[in-house]
Amino acid sequence: MKFTKLHGLGNSYIYLDGFNDAIPSEQDLPKTAIAVSNPYTGIGSDGLILILPSEGSDVRMRVFNNDGSEAKNCGNGLRCVSKYVYDRGIVTSTTFTIETLGGEVEAEVHPDDANQVKMVTVDMGVPRLKKSDLPMTGNGAEQTINESIAIADHQFSMTGVSMGNPHIIMFTDDISKAPVSTLGPLIEKSSVFPEGVNVEWVQMVSEREMNFKVWERGSGITQACGTGACAAVVAAVLNGQSKKDEEVIVHLPGGDLYITWSSKDDHVWMRGEAVTVCHGKYLA
Amino acid sequence: MKFTKLHGLGNSYIYLDGFNDAIPSEQDLPKTAIAVSNPYTGIGSDGLILILPSEGSDVRMRVFNNDGSEAKNCGNGLRCVSKYVYDRGIVTSTTFTIETLGGEVEAEVHPDDANQVKMVTVDMGVPRLKKSDLPMTGNGAEQTINESIAIADHQFSMTGVSMGNPHIIMFTDDISKAPVSTLGPLIEKSSVFPEGVNVEWVQMVSEREMNFKVWERGSGITQACGTGACAAVVAAVLNGQSKKDEEVIVHLPGGDLYITWSSKDDHVWMRGEAVTVCHGKYLA
Repeated sequence: MKFTKLHGLGNSYIYLDGFNDAIPSEQDLPKTAIAVSNPYTGIGSDGLILILPSEGSDVRMRVFNNDGSEAKNCGNGLRCVSKYVYDRGIVTSTTFTIETLGGEVEAEVHPDDANQVKMVTVDMGVPRLKKSDLPMTGNGAEQTINESIAIADHQFSMTGVSMGNPHIIMFTDDISKAPVSTLGPLIEKSSVFPEGVNVEWVQMVSEREMNFKVWERGSGITQACGTGACAAVVAAVLNGQSKKDEEVIVHLPGGDLYITWSSKDDHVWMRGEAVTVCHGKYLA
Repeated sequence: MKFTKLHGLGNSYIYLDGFNDAIPSEQDLPKTAIAVSNPYTGIGSDGLILILPSEGSDVRMRVFNNDGSEAKNCGNGLRCVSKYVYDRGIVTSTTFTIETLGGEVEAEVHPDDANQVKMVTVDMGVPRLKKSDLPMTGNGAEQTINESIAIADHQFSMTGVSMGNPHIIMFTDDISKAPVSTLGPLIEKSSVFPEGVNVEWVQMVSEREMNFKVWERGSGITQACGTGACAAVVAAVLNGQSKKDEEVIVHLPGGDLYITWSSKDDHVWMRGEAVTVCHGKYLA
């Protein structure tokens, strides 16, 4: 099976090219995602991404986590897919559209003088803020903004944002003490979030700069989560800690993303790197 | 840079073929090992292994850990190198010799009816038991067999075995409670072992079966350590828990190895699997 491994800020996936190569059958996709993602007996990655022809968009992306579950969207994956399809000539324009389970996304690659793509901007769409958008349980306010919620004997101040996939954001004074590995899985699996949730901790440095850690639904601790960084900046604006139309630098464990929530059309734009690690043939 | 990833019991390395492909320069080898081993921004592995021409043996193997340090030997690596050189026709006999920093090693591949190599036996040589062989400090007995040694406010009952690289073995009644990640690094870096040491915990199931966990010098927790499994069986014989000439099944986190300490020539023989994961081109 031919593959390419790319990463965006250390968030790495095995990419299969449905335009040019054979793709595993539908029922084999979850176990293939689990196998290739294993760092010991597989290639090693956060999951598997298929790059496919689309009926309504220029390309289609399907994302499988390293536990075999399918994700609605993946911000770092969008940037890597964008680099891949431009580098391989699958698209010829620097702007194009990508179909995902979470909806259609606009992308723009920024090739350098040697026509190499290192940075990509992706339109991450309009954040949806209703409890029913995540979905999550709870009465009272229609949105979840700095709401006190009890899970597993802990009390959390949570802000809920859907970027196609669901995120819950908590602010902290010291990102180094965020209980990502201990409380992340408890929140992810809580009955408050019937479809699970991505869990983020954010420490504001200034209005235009934040530190960020994530527990990803289905993948656990990862180096970066693009939709999570977008959701965190939206949450910062909702809580009065950042402003619309001002680019916020988000420091993730794997590197930096540049996020702007536009007041013009309410869309969130994400700019960041995309890197090809290796390509080859998977045999195991 | 062309590469092949192989694993033995989940102990995975990136292999570079110095017979057919370009190899990084000497001064670039440590940083290349660190880069390709990174699971996020690299391919992901326990380290880098070079397969090279040898002056006195059939092939030569150099092992770099994922911290860039060079290892004397690697039991799982020997099996994978053996499979590689036979599969690629670099050797044509099923028995051959491999040069390592720890000395020359005999290997035998067991191709199946389709001439595919799944199992490999490697002569791991004569264990060396003197304190000076590891090396380790200490007075009294020339060998370290079930000796009480104090490190970092803890008291350990240790047995020391060199299989070309140094191992310290401790027996436990419950392998699931072995303090691998907490005390492994303290023992590795202790001044008792001036060149560091590989640290193993062993739980005997019967004379011919043991459970095994390892903290590898320079690599930390790994799924398997071939020389460590050999050292553990030698330690079991020295402590009267196993017998020479009787094959012992060693259950490692990544799978099973079959180890025999022969009374005929005092050599230790290791039999186990070797698997090709993928091959391709590394670009990052």
